[in-house]
Amino acid sequence: MQITEGLARFLVEHRPEDMPERVHHEAKRSLVNFFATALGGCRNEAFEIVLATLGDYVGPAHATVIGRRERADALTATFLNAVSSNVLDFDDTHLRTVIHPTAPVAPPLLALAERRPISGAALLHAFALGVEVECRIGNALSPGHYRRGWHITATCGVLGAAAAAGKLLGLDARRMGWALGAAATQSSGLIENLGTMSKSVGVGNAARNGLAAALFAERGLTGPEQPIEGPRGFAAVMGDDFDLSPIVDGLGGSWELMQNAYKPYPSGVVLHPVIDACLELRPKVGDPQRIDRVLVKGHPLLRERADRPNVTTGREAQVSLQHSVAVAFLYGAAGVTQYTDACVNDPAVLALRRKVAAEDDASIPADAAVVSVRSATGELLTAHIAHARGSIARPLSDRELEAKLRELAAYGAPGVEAERLIAAVWAIDRMENVADVVAITAAAARQLG
Amino acid sequence: MQITEGLARFLVEHRPEDMPERVHHEAKRSLVNFFATALGGCRNEAFEIVLATLGDYVGPAHATVIGRRERADALTATFLNAVSSNVLDFDDTHLRTVIHPTAPVAPPLLALAERRPISGAALLHAFALGVEVECRIGNALSPGHYRRGWHITATCGVLGAAAAAGKLLGLDARRMGWALGAAATQSSGLIENLGTMSKSVGVGNAARNGLAAALFAERGLTGPEQPIEGPRGFAAVMGDDFDLSPIVDGLGGSWELMQNAYKPYPSGVVLHPVIDACLELRPKVGDPQRIDRVLVKGHPLLRERADRPNVTTGREAQVSLQHSVAVAFLYGAAGVTQYTDACVNDPAVLALRRKVAAEDDASIPADAAVVSVRSATGELLTAHIAHARGSIARPLSDRELEAKLRELAAYGAPGVEAERLIAAVWAIDRMENVADVVAITAAAARQLG
Repeated sequence: MQITEGLARFLVEHRPEDMPERVHHEAKRSLVNFFATALGGCRNEAFEIVLATLGDYVGPAHATVIGRRERADALTATFLNAVSSNVLDFDDTHLRTVIHPTAPVAPPLLALAERRPISGAALLHAFALGVEVECRIGNALSPGHYRRGWHITATCGVLGAAAAAGKLLGLDARRMGWALGAAATQSSGLIENLGTMSKSVGVGNAARNGLAAALFAERGLTGPEQPIEGPRGFAAVMGDDFDLSPIVDGLGGSWELMQNAYKPYPSGVVLHPVIDACLELRPKVGDPQRIDRVLVKGHPLLRERADRPNVTTGREAQVSLQHSVAVAFLYGAAGVTQYTDACVNDPAVLALRRKVAAEDDASIPADAAVVSVRSATGELLTAHIAHARGSIARPLSDRELEAKLRELAAYGAPGVEAERLIAAVWAIDRMENVADVVAITAAAARQLG
Repeated sequence: MQITEGLARFLVEHRPEDMPERVHHEAKRSLVNFFATALGGCRNEAFEIVLATLGDYVGPAHATVIGRRERADALTATFLNAVSSNVLDFDDTHLRTVIHPTAPVAPPLLALAERRPISGAALLHAFALGVEVECRIGNALSPGHYRRGWHITATCGVLGAAAAAGKLLGLDARRMGWALGAAATQSSGLIENLGTMSKSVGVGNAARNGLAAALFAERGLTGPEQPIEGPRGFAAVMGDDFDLSPIVDGLGGSWELMQNAYKPYPSGVVLHPVIDACLELRPKVGDPQRIDRVLVKGHPLLRERADRPNVTTGREAQVSLQHSVAVAFLYGAAGVTQYTDACVNDPAVLALRRKVAAEDDASIPADAAVVSVRSATGELLTAHIAHARGSIARPLSDRELEAKLRELAAYGAPGVEAERLIAAVWAIDRMENVADVVAITAAAARQLG
């Protein structure tokens, strides 16, 4: 089976007018969510470290570092914007593969759009194609690839980034194949690094190296004929129990972007129905400090992943059931400020965390939960959540995505005009030059370094 | 077993004065060979493409691009110098693992030496330690890792580069562990890409990303505790049938650099005893155009890898027995000019290639060969080579390495003063500032881009 050749031909031949309107709109939703998380993450500690480090080596001020005053060369800006959009673990998720699709694919396109005029329609099209490539390759290798220990967002992301950038650069099919080859040989990223700052290096590289692969191919750097399917290629070397046919079967007839989900809370997805239930109960409970006991029932995966009564850092709290319940009742929110170290060590939060108990119930699906609590008046209140907000069955609305962008901009990049940015993204398909949108994400520019 | 911690502690604690003199000298020999191949490769087509591509994104003119007038930021120069030194397939080889040790490890050190004063002794020490790390990790994962399809020079090279750069940066043990972690999550490079220009992307990244890993760690970017030995770390994810104990057993008591070999010819090592034999016979044969038939006997691996009578490009000719025999007799040489496309299509070479026959003889070791030819006077001449030049049993002498540098400088970088460079490398351990050596490798500087 000619996987690389088939993919390359599809990428080169597919036209913007053949992309369904719903895919178009989902691409815009992914971009709203992307800008939200990039603005939220652009002052995170890991981000500040990679920014300061690369600042010594940066080239011409081609491109915006989202949410910041600094500018950077297109390769470095691509790295940095991928890092900021993913660093909070609050970006989008293709649930079947656990790929976070947008972090590797959007940044190369935005950086290219600051180097040459690119229309919004062309950008949305290239973006959807890039996501299609990374997620289809992810489908083909799942679940063995992630289970082996590969950070699939990085490993498949570099191929999506190369495909998307190659489309914007107008590569022919031969060069598109070379771009995929140069991407495949750069594919990396270990699960072992998750939970540490160096996770960001893998995600940043996926975006940067995918762009570099397309730029190398544009100039004629040759690659193998079958970088994905060849005997010592990507799938054979990095896969475990794979089937490559889903990569090319029905290309253009279905769109993986339609399976993209957006988190309402910056915490593990198993916690999301629990948080939904607590927020639903909160108005009826009265003073949360007087709560005596909270009982959470959920799928066994919930306790397995998130039964962490004693946490001391924001990062740990992101996978703590007890912390998430406590902040939902105390603050009526479980956003980025509720997962800071300061909030985790707040005495009121500590006190309420101790009153949370959890029970397994295998009959409850993983995106559902049942929470019970006794009100101040002694009444037993119970909330059943059948599908968490942000799941595919109950996706965030456009308005909820806008609110997420507003909240994260205020948290990480208060100088950025959130309303203008939101309006610009919804209108992006009518724009002649996407650089106008990107410009909104930075208040004032100066060269990084 | 605490692999990463053990490695990090060794790297931090080991002192230059504890490195044996023979390792010191071998490090210098590796550098002579490195400069030779970098000078030879710095105008190769693949090199010109990556240079032109990255030229648009390059940062401050920190560092020399070996053999060129361009300068580049330290990360980009590191990438480029790794590419030029490896692109001709003429660099050094650690035979047990097939790692080309110097290409990933030397460039970060030379680039750092242009950013802050570094003594020759400190550079040789960091270099030997970096080679130790990459080759010990390679030993632990061999042969399963390469057999699976990993380009081991790139995949293990990034760890050696991070270790060496971290040593020069003076990282403490905790930060050295983080550097190894940031390197592990960037480890990549597929065998599928060998034989195409995108091989160079993997090798360039190994050097660049190893340096970046050390620079990130220096600024405090955290990593996992066990990036190499952890359950989803480098060895578990990228290994097949490995034993990690050789990574830390007897550290400092043996030196992998002593197993480094240098090629006298830019062709597959199985061909080297054959070329030796032809060069030995040549003075006795008379006019090579009158040769009637050449019979080569060798280990079955020889025919399996190199029985290629009909080749049309220099790259293919590098693994052609027939071509190598023909040029050795016709030109008395099998250097870079004998593996150009022009030479491959020379009618005299074509004519002699047709007269070469090969036979398997399982009793002949792989680094040996027997070549027979009839002289113009009808005499049957035979040469037996027990060990090829450049093998561990018959290493190139210091003088032969010097000649290799002279030849390759003349081929790829005629503006560079080879004699001055040779003298400087042999004297490097007495230099206060290595930047003085690096400066010799470029005739005149201008910013790349």
